[in-house]
Amino acid sequence: MVIVIQCADQTGLVSAITGVLAAKKLNIVSLREHVDQTENRFYMRLEVTEAFEADLLLSEFQRVLPPAALITINPLPHKKIVVLVTKEYHCLADILVKNYFSSLGATVSAVIGNYPDLEDICKRFNIPFFFVSHENKDKATFEDEMTEIILTYAPEYLVLAKFMRILSPAFVAQFPKQIINIHHSFLPAFIGANPYKKAFERGVKLIGATAHFVTNDLDEGPIITQQTISVNHSQVTADMVKTGKEIETSVLAKALRLVFDDRVFVYRNKTVVFD
Amino acid sequence: MVIVIQCADQTGLVSAITGVLAAKKLNIVSLREHVDQTENRFYMRLEVTEAFEADLLLSEFQRVLPPAALITINPLPHKKIVVLVTKEYHCLADILVKNYFSSLGATVSAVIGNYPDLEDICKRFNIPFFFVSHENKDKATFEDEMTEIILTYAPEYLVLAKFMRILSPAFVAQFPKQIINIHHSFLPAFIGANPYKKAFERGVKLIGATAHFVTNDLDEGPIITQQTISVNHSQVTADMVKTGKEIETSVLAKALRLVFDDRVFVYRNKTVVFD
Amino acid sequence: MVIVIQCADQTGLVSAITGVLAAKKLNIVSLREHVDQTENRFYMRLEVTEAFEADLLLSEFQRVLPPAALITINPLPHKKIVVLVTKEYHCLADILVKNYFSSLGATVSAVIGNYPDLEDICKRFNIPFFFVSHENKDKATFEDEMTEIILTYAPEYLVLAKFMRILSPAFVAQFPKQIINIHHSFLPAFIGANPYKKAFERGVKLIGATAHFVTNDLDEGPIITQQTISVNHSQVTADMVKTGKEIETSVLAKALRLVFDDRVFVYRNKTVVFD
Amino acid sequence: MVIVIQCADQTGLVSAITGVLAAKKLNIVSLREHVDQTENRFYMRLEVTEAFEADLLLSEFQRVLPPAALITINPLPHKKIVVLVTKEYHCLADILVKNYFSSLGATVSAVIGNYPDLEDICKRFNIPFFFVSHENKDKATFEDEMTEIILTYAPEYLVLAKFMRILSPAFVAQFPKQIINIHHSFLPAFIGANPYKKAFERGVKLIGATAHFVTNDLDEGPIITQQTISVNHSQVTADMVKTGKEIETSVLAKALRLVFDDRVFVYRNKTVVFD
Repeated sequence: MVIVIQCADQTGLVSAITGVLAAKKLNIVSLREHVDQTENRFYMRLEVTEAFEADLLLSEFQRVLPPAALITINPLPHKKIVVLVTKEYHCLADILVKNYFSSLGATVSAVIGNYPDLEDICKRFNIPFFFVSHENKDKATFEDEMTEIILTYAPEYLVLAKFMRILSPAFVAQFPKQIINIHHSFLPAFIGANPYKKAFERGVKLIGATAHFVTNDLDEGPIITQQTISVNHSQVTADMVKTGKEIETSVLAKALRLVFDDRVFVYRNKTVVFD
Repeated sequence: MVIVIQCADQTGLVSAITGVLAAKKLNIVSLREHVDQTENRFYMRLEVTEAFEADLLLSEFQRVLPPAALITINPLPHKKIVVLVTKEYHCLADILVKNYFSSLGATVSAVIGNYPDLEDICKRFNIPFFFVSHENKDKATFEDEMTEIILTYAPEYLVLAKFMRILSPAFVAQFPKQIINIHHSFLPAFIGANPYKKAFERGVKLIGATAHFVTNDLDEGPIITQQTISVNHSQVTADMVKTGKEIETSVLAKALRLVFDDRVFVYRNKTVVFD
Repeated sequence: MVIVIQCADQTGLVSAITGVLAAKKLNIVSLREHVDQTENRFYMRLEVTEAFEADLLLSEFQRVLPPAALITINPLPHKKIVVLVTKEYHCLADILVKNYFSSLGATVSAVIGNYPDLEDICKRFNIPFFFVSHENKDKATFEDEMTEIILTYAPEYLVLAKFMRILSPAFVAQFPKQIINIHHSFLPAFIGANPYKKAFERGVKLIGATAHFVTNDLDEGPIITQQTISVNHSQVTADMVKTGKEIETSVLAKALRLVFDDRVFVYRNKTVVFD
Repeated sequence: MVIVIQCADQTGLVSAITGVLAAKKLNIVSLREHVDQTENRFYMRLEVTEAFEADLLLSEFQRVLPPAALITINPLPHKKIVVLVTKEYHCLADILVKNYFSSLGATVSAVIGNYPDLEDICKRFNIPFFFVSHENKDKATFEDEMTEIILTYAPEYLVLAKFMRILSPAFVAQFPKQIINIHHSFLPAFIGANPYKKAFERGVKLIGATAHFVTNDLDEGPIITQQTISVNHSQVTADMVKTGKEIETSVLAKALRLVFDDRVFVYRNKTVVFD
């Protein structure tokens, strides 16, 4: 059983929380706690080997914690996700394969593409694919069509697996701290479009990828994880795009693993990650 | 103030320990706890912002913890170390420079070399250097001469910074969990002498280094940290030795930082590292 | 057009080879040459932008090179491969996905499994799957059944994508320098079975994977590429197996990319890799 | 003997260059050639085992190469450098130690500091230190004082080892392609001052360092090499500064090794690095 708690910090929280568990003879086999002293914010994740009635624990925790504490007990072992894509296959395929072999830590409910290119691969894995074109309609209409589909599945997370449209604040506001994006650069370098072209022109020796939660500001959301990989003078933009696919896949996979394993806390524009 | 505790596991330990701190209004800003379920062993490291009388805390912890618990409260901010070397300079120089600029997290009391080659660099930093030759004497005599020097400094740790002699069980037994060695391979590959020559002959594409505590079995002690670095066909043994120096320096530096920061627990032939 | 040459070294080879190309006004845009001075062996890979008649170039190269020179001009842009598997899906799935999206640099002709577990994923991608059990028959019979299938496809390479049977010298001899294996450790550490269990017991802080050509000696063939990844005290054997899957997939993918791109030379028990 | 050549590309260059060497029975043991097709620029680095009269080779190369070709034959085995510093010791100390143990690949002629803090460490290694304050004078005067000192040593390179003043175009113009800087971020992220503070505020999970040649545009010069290292939520700005020191030292050391080994070509705002 995993328990994650986020709240304003005050003295005695660890003692109060673990006291509840000790009284029930629950043994903590792993615990991570961190206080962000700048924000006076408390984060904790712990694992106990035995299961216990969640509602009962919840009410006892609420009694000892500050009023606005975010408490999650025994989170869903398999979250549901909806994946948004455009044309590039690499991140989606990795997700579909892991979903098929039950190693994703979540279940893919559906895939929405603003191009039809990736419908076939979804069909091969029996995953519903919805083609929602963004063409010849305003953004609100496009997003409403997607929202309607998404809401029928009530997913815990939306995963933007190389979805190349910018989402409106109105859309994002419907799914707070629920939208995960993979950006094809090591942010804050190369914000926005064509990062590999910019990287080539600058002559960098590293390219990277960043998985982050989506907020209203483009590429400014809380970062979950990032990686870089070496490139050299022999690689033109197209080669960097190809190399980048490997690292984008790897970074998004790692971010999903962390999120699905309840190791990521979001507060304002940052994350706390107990990896 | 840092508190580190290691003991047999039982239910309620975190609650008991943090209860002591809560009663004294001490606020925990960082806590890591791990239970090794195979060994039924409990490890915890925590930081509180305020200082408190160590003896008083110690006695209260002893009251709530199992009898053989290892408890360290407010460990020495700067440990003393004695460094043993042979002829290679790179690890020693890194230690001497950091010691000189007060960023080692420990103080170098003295250096012992079984060759005189590194005396000059020590003198430049005003560090006592003792030349103790291993030649023309038996190992026990050699080690006794070193022991005599070491004991005058009563160091918390002995650091083997490319010390190329194998130490006897009798010597090692005098400094349990106190001797840290840098081995020039990613153990358990290439145990023993000439790892780079063996690496070249095998045609590996990675070489590495391992920092570990020294026990009686050659290169079998508890590993603290390891790193690898790429090599290729163009590198002959001498090139690998040169590349290896960089990584040996880096790995030993990281291990010392972890140990001096009280982040490493040793139990049997393994470590728990809260990095 | 790519040209790769391997032969005994002698003075003037680069001049002789590039003289042939200059006479035909072919412009070299990338060239790597390496002489292994220990073995007196010459390796070269070059790229020219224009195409040219391969037979004509070959005969001219043969005129200026030592008799036993290995020369490959304009190698097949897409090699054919047959993949051998057991039960684990991760390496195979990565290969099937890239094959499906034409980014493998080779074509998967067929998959052979000594268990039927991976038949379904192959079918989903329309790749022929042959179940060849090793049970209730001697190794020669088992291997003959596989050989018969393999030969009908005449592949350039056999890829052992987590194939957990040891192949006999007789089988290996049929496919010299053509069999690529992924081993789940950073060789030469943890040769043989259960490397993750051994890694856990030793308490290493890195695990790794090695892609190599298969020779008669178990896990002793020429290494193509290797990588490592950090692990810590919280990971038991099963966790290391899971972490290992990511790196095994990545290392095999990189090795295949290098081999299919004609960047890997094999000589005796080593490789030269122009990456 | 190392030969490096950079010029406009044309068909037949490799053949022409290696033909000169073959006629003199010089054996090429390593060769890297790259054509930047965007810029139509040719880069080559080769090694021959034997020595030969440089002037004679130079005139023969000039005969077969385009008029403006940059040819360096048998470059100085040990370049002279002058190091500019401010207050931080880590990069300078690494350079001084390697210089002292003759493993720098260059000789440190002098160190100039705009603060006196690092004079003592230089004295300990018998390296001339010049304190040139930037205070109470205009930039031109400050730079003229430095230039006067530098010119007395006629160094091949100026190394800015955490020199925290921006140099004027007039100063930079005196040392084209000769000034190497270490910037404490993975450019182009966090250009300018206080990159670690910005990194902390953005909540990045990686920090990095970049070694580059200095041109007139701040932090926009040709990049030689870059590395990144993981950080997490527990690290505040001061911790990132500390972690950054390790990677800054490592990146500058690697860049210097590449430059001193004649593996770096500069053209416009990019480099070609044969590492």
